[in-house]
Amino acid sequence: MIDRLIERIQELQAPVVAGLDPNLQFVPDSLKEKAYKEYGETLEGAAEAVWEFNKAIIDSIADIVPAVKPQIAMYEQFGIPGMVVFDRTVRYCKEKGLSVIGDIKRGDIGSTSEAYARGHIGKVQVGNSTLRAFDEDFITVNPYMGTDCVEPFLKVAKEDGKGLFVLIKTSNPSSGEFQDRLIDGRPLFEHVAEKVNKWGEGLNGKYGYGPVGAVVGATYPQQAAAIRKLIPNAYILVPGYGAQGATAKDILPNFNSDGLGAIVNSSRGIIAAYRNKAYSSYGPDHFAEAARASALDMIADIRSALKDRS
Amino acid sequence: MIDRLIERIQELQAPVVAGLDPNLQFVPDSLKEKAYKEYGETLEGAAEAVWEFNKAIIDSIADIVPAVKPQIAMYEQFGIPGMVVFDRTVRYCKEKGLSVIGDIKRGDIGSTSEAYARGHIGKVQVGNSTLRAFDEDFITVNPYMGTDCVEPFLKVAKEDGKGLFVLIKTSNPSSGEFQDRLIDGRPLFEHVAEKVNKWGEGLNGKYGYGPVGAVVGATYPQQAAAIRKLIPNAYILVPGYGAQGATAKDILPNFNSDGLGAIVNSSRGIIAAYRNKAYSSYGPDHFAEAARASALDMIADIRSALKDRS
Repeated sequence: MIDRLIERIQELQAPVVAGLDPNLQFVPDSLKEKAYKEYGETLEGAAEAVWEFNKAIIDSIADIVPAVKPQIAMYEQFGIPGMVVFDRTVRYCKEKGLSVIGDIKRGDIGSTSEAYARGHIGKVQVGNSTLRAFDEDFITVNPYMGTDCVEPFLKVAKEDGKGLFVLIKTSNPSSGEFQDRLIDGRPLFEHVAEKVNKWGEGLNGKYGYGPVGAVVGATYPQQAAAIRKLIPNAYILVPGYGAQGATAKDILPNFNSDGLGAIVNSSRGIIAAYRNKAYSSYGPDHFAEAARASALDMIADIRSALKDRS
Repeated sequence: MIDRLIERIQELQAPVVAGLDPNLQFVPDSLKEKAYKEYGETLEGAAEAVWEFNKAIIDSIADIVPAVKPQIAMYEQFGIPGMVVFDRTVRYCKEKGLSVIGDIKRGDIGSTSEAYARGHIGKVQVGNSTLRAFDEDFITVNPYMGTDCVEPFLKVAKEDGKGLFVLIKTSNPSSGEFQDRLIDGRPLFEHVAEKVNKWGEGLNGKYGYGPVGAVVGATYPQQAAAIRKLIPNAYILVPGYGAQGATAKDILPNFNSDGLGAIVNSSRGIIAAYRNKAYSSYGPDHFAEAARASALDMIADIRSALKDRS
């Protein structure tokens, strides 16, 4: 799966993920009104508005970005109807040829991690049937509980050639509270990075990258440089570009010298572009075109930064 | 909510949570066959089997335990039908007067944590409607990302008098890999414990405990003693009793001298009791009675250990 993602990144010259985090306030009023008219101001109504919003954006960007990252919390908040739309979004993106990174940040004791893994990137056995539930291509994983909680995810990922991105250094302001604390003279996140490297050992695909990737926030470029050295064969998912404040220059340390090794996420910056001054001329009715314009600008920005570096 | 839980613990003299983690292999064949006959060997069939299993167990133990802890992964693995049964299980338990701890171990950047919180212990706004999605009483939270990821959970919990249990020291074998590493001479989990204490400051209810609780594995009694001192006002959810190897003596350090402050979880030990030698005479058809017998034994075991201590 990582090989396929890399090929598509190279084909499009776009190491970019569009984060499908459809907070209701990003959804234009006209879509919400239409959905509420049909389903009422209910969880179903909210989910329907989110679905129509997602679909338009996916249709608008599927030929220019290699991957999307639906943030499951934004769906889970609407209960069952929200989860139905998460599922529908994942399927629709895959039909459109997009790689899907489920941003689920799960992690638990062994048997529980395995259940999450089977539900999201693997198969469950029901009697004699082997079935798939949510079926993303990649998921994000929280490492706080240690190796025996990450291994079941890796076991399941390997069965189907899927992949993980393990949180190392997150993009939020207080990520340093625990992640930056020094253990034997080195920050916790470096110890996590070493484990990520170990978990992925011997599993590299044809481009030199394996199924165990990492999450490193674009908002911490210095830390990224240190992490990059520790995990040469891990693909890095980089959130924090744009709305969270990081620039194209900030994300450079996450790339290897081969120009590969990182994929940069923007959520609000793409899906809610029509609300930004720079794209406000599109207006709420043309939110999907605004998303495309913003994604194209982001791709150009990153291409240019990568070119200037080399 | 913590006050209500404490009152029920005292009423029943049972600081015990039944973990509703219905791995399909725990569900007796007769229930599975019935469900598959109606729904096929499908996700719906699996979910239906789980629902019938849960319902029988809940009916059998609702008058002897104060709380249940559904592990969402065991439902999420069956996709939408699984989530429907998670939701139904939560509602049914609440109808029966049980406190419900959603074992979801979520945690993300601020706006995302808030979405999880609203979806599980709060309300979402859809147009002019204020709605509830999954509606547990408590949830478990992963602290790896720091304060700004935990605060939104607390904000939402306070709105409705609900509560959190933040992972401090987990019960799994490799929990020490990161959690035990020394930072300024003290293990990471103690630093997390200090934050838990801080997050809960000034929020104590009438029994001296607040909405920010902690998860401390029964499998690490020594660490529990240190943690107990650092978080005098936090209720501790203690997994690991029974199937994971911890005894009633091991869980004692989690209790305060008032006999309160901890609630001990058993999952497999209760719900799959009929598969244990000690309760095998019940047979698979009487799994719910076996669960009750095992829960009663666990309650007696913990009561006796608490009594011996005082």
